[in-house]
Amino acid sequence: MGNADYVYPSTNEYCQCAHPVAVPPPQPFFKSFKNSLKETFFPDDPLRQFKNKTPSRKFFLGLQYFLPILEWGPRYTFQFLKSDLISGITIASLAIPQGISYAKLANLPPILGLYSSFIPPLIYAMMGSSRDLAVGTVAVASLLIGSMLGDEVNATENPALYLHLAFTATFFAGLLQASLGLLRLGFIVDFLSHATIVGFMGGAATVVILQQLKGILGLQHFTQSTDIISVLRSVFSQIHEWRWESGVLGAVFLFFLLLSRYFSKKRPKFFWISAMAPLTTVILGSLLVYLTHAEKHGVDVIGNLKKGLNPPSFGDFVFTSPYLTTAVKTGMITGIIALAEGIAVGRSFAMFKHYSIDGNKEMVAIGTMNIVGSCFSCYLTTGPFSRSAVNFNAGCKTAMSNVVMAIAVMFTLLFLTPLFHYTPLVVLSAIIISAMLGLIDYEAAIHLWKVDKFDFVVCMGAYIGVVFASVEVGLVIAVAISVLRLLLFVARPKTFVLGNLPNSTIYRSVEQYPTTNDVPGILILQIDAPIYFANSSYLRERISRWIDEEEDKLKSTGETSLQYVIFNMSAVGNIDTSGISMLEEVKKITDRRGLKLVLANPGAEVMKKLNKSKFIETIGKEWIYLTVGEAVEACNYKLHTCKPDATNEDSQPWNSV
Amino acid sequence: MGNADYVYPSTNEYCQCAHPVAVPPPQPFFKSFKNSLKETFFPDDPLRQFKNKTPSRKFFLGLQYFLPILEWGPRYTFQFLKSDLISGITIASLAIPQGISYAKLANLPPILGLYSSFIPPLIYAMMGSSRDLAVGTVAVASLLIGSMLGDEVNATENPALYLHLAFTATFFAGLLQASLGLLRLGFIVDFLSHATIVGFMGGAATVVILQQLKGILGLQHFTQSTDIISVLRSVFSQIHEWRWESGVLGAVFLFFLLLSRYFSKKRPKFFWISAMAPLTTVILGSLLVYLTHAEKHGVDVIGNLKKGLNPPSFGDFVFTSPYLTTAVKTGMITGIIALAEGIAVGRSFAMFKHYSIDGNKEMVAIGTMNIVGSCFSCYLTTGPFSRSAVNFNAGCKTAMSNVVMAIAVMFTLLFLTPLFHYTPLVVLSAIIISAMLGLIDYEAAIHLWKVDKFDFVVCMGAYIGVVFASVEVGLVIAVAISVLRLLLFVARPKTFVLGNLPNSTIYRSVEQYPTTNDVPGILILQIDAPIYFANSSYLRERISRWIDEEEDKLKSTGETSLQYVIFNMSAVGNIDTSGISMLEEVKKITDRRGLKLVLANPGAEVMKKLNKSKFIETIGKEWIYLTVGEAVEACNYKLHTCKPDATNEDSQPWNSV
Repeated sequence: MGNADYVYPSTNEYCQCAHPVAVPPPQPFFKSFKNSLKETFFPDDPLRQFKNKTPSRKFFLGLQYFLPILEWGPRYTFQFLKSDLISGITIASLAIPQGISYAKLANLPPILGLYSSFIPPLIYAMMGSSRDLAVGTVAVASLLIGSMLGDEVNATENPALYLHLAFTATFFAGLLQASLGLLRLGFIVDFLSHATIVGFMGGAATVVILQQLKGILGLQHFTQSTDIISVLRSVFSQIHEWRWESGVLGAVFLFFLLLSRYFSKKRPKFFWISAMAPLTTVILGSLLVYLTHAEKHGVDVIGNLKKGLNPPSFGDFVFTSPYLTTAVKTGMITGIIALAEGIAVGRSFAMFKHYSIDGNKEMVAIGTMNIVGSCFSCYLTTGPFSRSAVNFNAGCKTAMSNVVMAIAVMFTLLFLTPLFHYTPLVVLSAIIISAMLGLIDYEAAIHLWKVDKFDFVVCMGAYIGVVFASVEVGLVIAVAISVLRLLLFVARPKTFVLGNLPNSTIYRSVEQYPTTNDVPGILILQIDAPIYFANSSYLRERISRWIDEEEDKLKSTGETSLQYVIFNMSAVGNIDTSGISMLEEVKKITDRRGLKLVLANPGAEVMKKLNKSKFIETIGKEWIYLTVGEAVEACNYKLHTCKPDATNEDSQPWNSV
Repeated sequence: MGNADYVYPSTNEYCQCAHPVAVPPPQPFFKSFKNSLKETFFPDDPLRQFKNKTPSRKFFLGLQYFLPILEWGPRYTFQFLKSDLISGITIASLAIPQGISYAKLANLPPILGLYSSFIPPLIYAMMGSSRDLAVGTVAVASLLIGSMLGDEVNATENPALYLHLAFTATFFAGLLQASLGLLRLGFIVDFLSHATIVGFMGGAATVVILQQLKGILGLQHFTQSTDIISVLRSVFSQIHEWRWESGVLGAVFLFFLLLSRYFSKKRPKFFWISAMAPLTTVILGSLLVYLTHAEKHGVDVIGNLKKGLNPPSFGDFVFTSPYLTTAVKTGMITGIIALAEGIAVGRSFAMFKHYSIDGNKEMVAIGTMNIVGSCFSCYLTTGPFSRSAVNFNAGCKTAMSNVVMAIAVMFTLLFLTPLFHYTPLVVLSAIIISAMLGLIDYEAAIHLWKVDKFDFVVCMGAYIGVVFASVEVGLVIAVAISVLRLLLFVARPKTFVLGNLPNSTIYRSVEQYPTTNDVPGILILQIDAPIYFANSSYLRERISRWIDEEEDKLKSTGETSLQYVIFNMSAVGNIDTSGISMLEEVKKITDRRGLKLVLANPGAEVMKKLNKSKFIETIGKEWIYLTVGEAVEACNYKLHTCKPDATNEDSQPWNSV
């Protein structure tokens, strides 16, 4: 035994085989502090691989940690290149129309969507640890940038300032993302639970689809708000402005896109049909407009796109008030949301291909690509689900497919931009709607309802908040409900009575196991959460009520009166000083009623604190047992040999609060 | 067995004695919803006493619930009256000088301190369930009112508006307190943990003492801020303004008060010396000033106090902007703090005299007394610790001592107010300092450090926040750290390896019980918290690392390779959909490594959700055991008869995120 001084010897006379409950050996404060810091921030022990290595090897491993390309690059084969080439070209064909569409959603010049598919994928290819993530802009973050920056600066009245604010916001988003990764605070993203993301994505998709009514119906004036009521009012108040040419064109293309998606879903082999469909609609739409001159009959087109690669934009950052606050706020919120999507997508595909990605490393990669991107006329990028799924289905092997996409986009920027002059906006709207419909995951919501009602409430809170108020409100509602749930778990822990499973020394919840038998004269309670300040008052009330109810029950049936109360502490992970006070009060209450308080199986942390606060001496160390079975055995032994000594130790003079 | 359909029969071939793990019988949604609402808001089951009673009896019981005087009034005896008379007069002698002092602290007319000791105690005597609480104003809330209202309105420039705002704030405080009680939201007060209150009270006492430097040194100009730096700068920047007469008088009286307190503490029988000391100093001080005409030599006095009872003030409430917001905010914060003090004090003394008080009922009583008080020129009252302790020591029997105090104060208001004309302010300062010194509980802080470092951090956060910034900042810091601790508990749960206690089927933490033995080929992990979205990513990483480390260890020692991973779910109180996804991922990880995942003792909630989400089918119900011992036995049995079947069920086609 490690340190015999701190382990109580067995003092139970009745039975030499009972096991003593150990107080863990004390640790120096700084050692235990270091350990908990390590568990909190480095649960994955990233320095593990550096052990017992030479300094130069350590340096190389460190470089590899931040640039995974150094790891997979040397092992890259021609086979890989072939697969990456195909998938890279496939995602480029999706990236070009999507990039232009999402830039319009953010009220930014369409060309920015192409710029953003050129530089960031190159950075990610070097730094990212996912093999399947395809980098690009996303609808939700684009919409958010549009609505948050739009509150401060009008994009049509002051396009230059608006553009510069978008770069600044992207810069801060990247800064936040990289810092979270470097500071190992990645767990903040975990607070966006699965249920939150389902509701939030569905709500955001609904909002984005509603926004497309402007493009589909060819409306010139439209509300700045994103909530469903404002948008529908805006649409139906100008029925006379609807353009039927635009509407028909949009409906036809949307039908085509949905059909191709449906077909690809039925036959996964033909994934490329749905992947190529957006580019096809763009080409068909542009041709149609070019041939019919529909741009002169109410069908809006993209117009001129500047030829050439990304111009530098690091001189454009706006660091002056009052715009700085808006930029920082927009950057923070969109940065977190983009990060959550990127990491969730990366993790899902990694799980599927049996490799694992490091959340903190991914954050540094995504953050760096946004910082660099913001210096070269890109706005916020991450790993969108749709594009990454296409990448995955196209058989990509490494992040090289991002490089292929970037080269394809570069080629487009250098030579092909004039071809988009006649692309009708309504086609872009159809592309967005078709992509967004896939994000409304009503099946997941039904699953949540079936499995966990609370998660369903979180999900619907996010959805309703996003659709009826705004994207930020929805997010705040969902996170607040989720955190409230955690707090409620601690504030209102389950307590339940245990009974004896027939022919065993096992004690389990009477509710879960209806075959269990009561133990005469003994009440066994299990507390199912740590005992903290937030629940100590509740637990005191609830325990008193359990004892009252048990005594009433025994009185009505005329059975043996209650003599012992055993707390099963197995599930009590920790206790604080308020919790210890609660136990002291419960001890007084039971003493007064002539009951004996017994503890079963307190864990290491709990024993340590009970020892330091002298509660072990108050209760008597002979009343702490290793298992409920041993505690019951000891109580039964004493019950049948002598009455418990109901000491009245609580008549000490009052000294302080 | 209640509902045999939902309990899995034992399908473990190896041993007929293994116990099946039960899925609890399903409950209709509304029934379980009702149950959890009841547990959350009515843990004390207040309607219990109404069961099986006639309607008229029910009505009377209901009335008794809100007016406990109907319960103890009929049993009131002459013996009780004698005790209550003595204690009532004792607390009145403390209430009068303290009331005047604290009103000065809130920048309110001194007479308000007397008003506030007249009406509210009468209300509380009818509605309160504590027998020991003595009602009155408190220093911390007074200071807070002074500083919060002072930010909006200057008390010397616009005294009428300031006074009306104080009534309005008190009204809202009462409204909040009563509503919290009626809505059974009393647990909000529980979030002010013991550690928070120790730090907060100590900090507030320090701030209050610093404020008294103005009175002691006889300064005319003083900073509006309450932080230590501003106050000390203000004091030391005007050394030439210090009045030695005032300083000497203050020091002498303070010495006398502290001496009496020290003496009373040594000999509890002479508690009345320290209880009477404040009134004695007031009388001595007033006599001294009257005889020496010191008021003309730099010793400030109270001056004229209006004769007569409380004038009505319900016409004075300010419900117009911009003042309404300030009043509401001040009311909310001071109301919560006053409530916390009142309930903590009531609970402590009740615990000591072996009766219990109902937190929600107390809130309604304290709230009502503040609502009524605010209509009759009283400001915020609660149950101050010092006065209640004196009441308790003086041997009070019921809330009748509050009535006696109120009558004594009424007598003072009607006839004795002119006597306070010559009372020097410096005496009031000395009384406040002497009372506040008792609130700085450094011994409690040392105890916190010894028992629970985190609680100590919370305590110091509150103290430093209050002293160096402001009362609100300190409170926010402490509550934020406390809540962060709860979240961290869930976000970073302890996981540990279990080993076998020699010669038993008991499995316990290897760290806590160093005598335990490893089980060859089996890794047993215990998860010590509910599996929620906030920890599912962490747990996945941590579990992978445990498996890695175990395999490394086995490899280095050349032992049997790892075959089974058993999760002891005893301490997992609940699981959400993110948690279930995590388990599914872990199942895939273990499958891929050729390991078999086994669950031991999942609780009712967990089994219900694993069943609904079909995870039980994924893992196989024969791999869920009731105890770790049975799981190990089964694994050992299979380990020695056949290899586990490492199925690769994870090659299904990708369908959705």
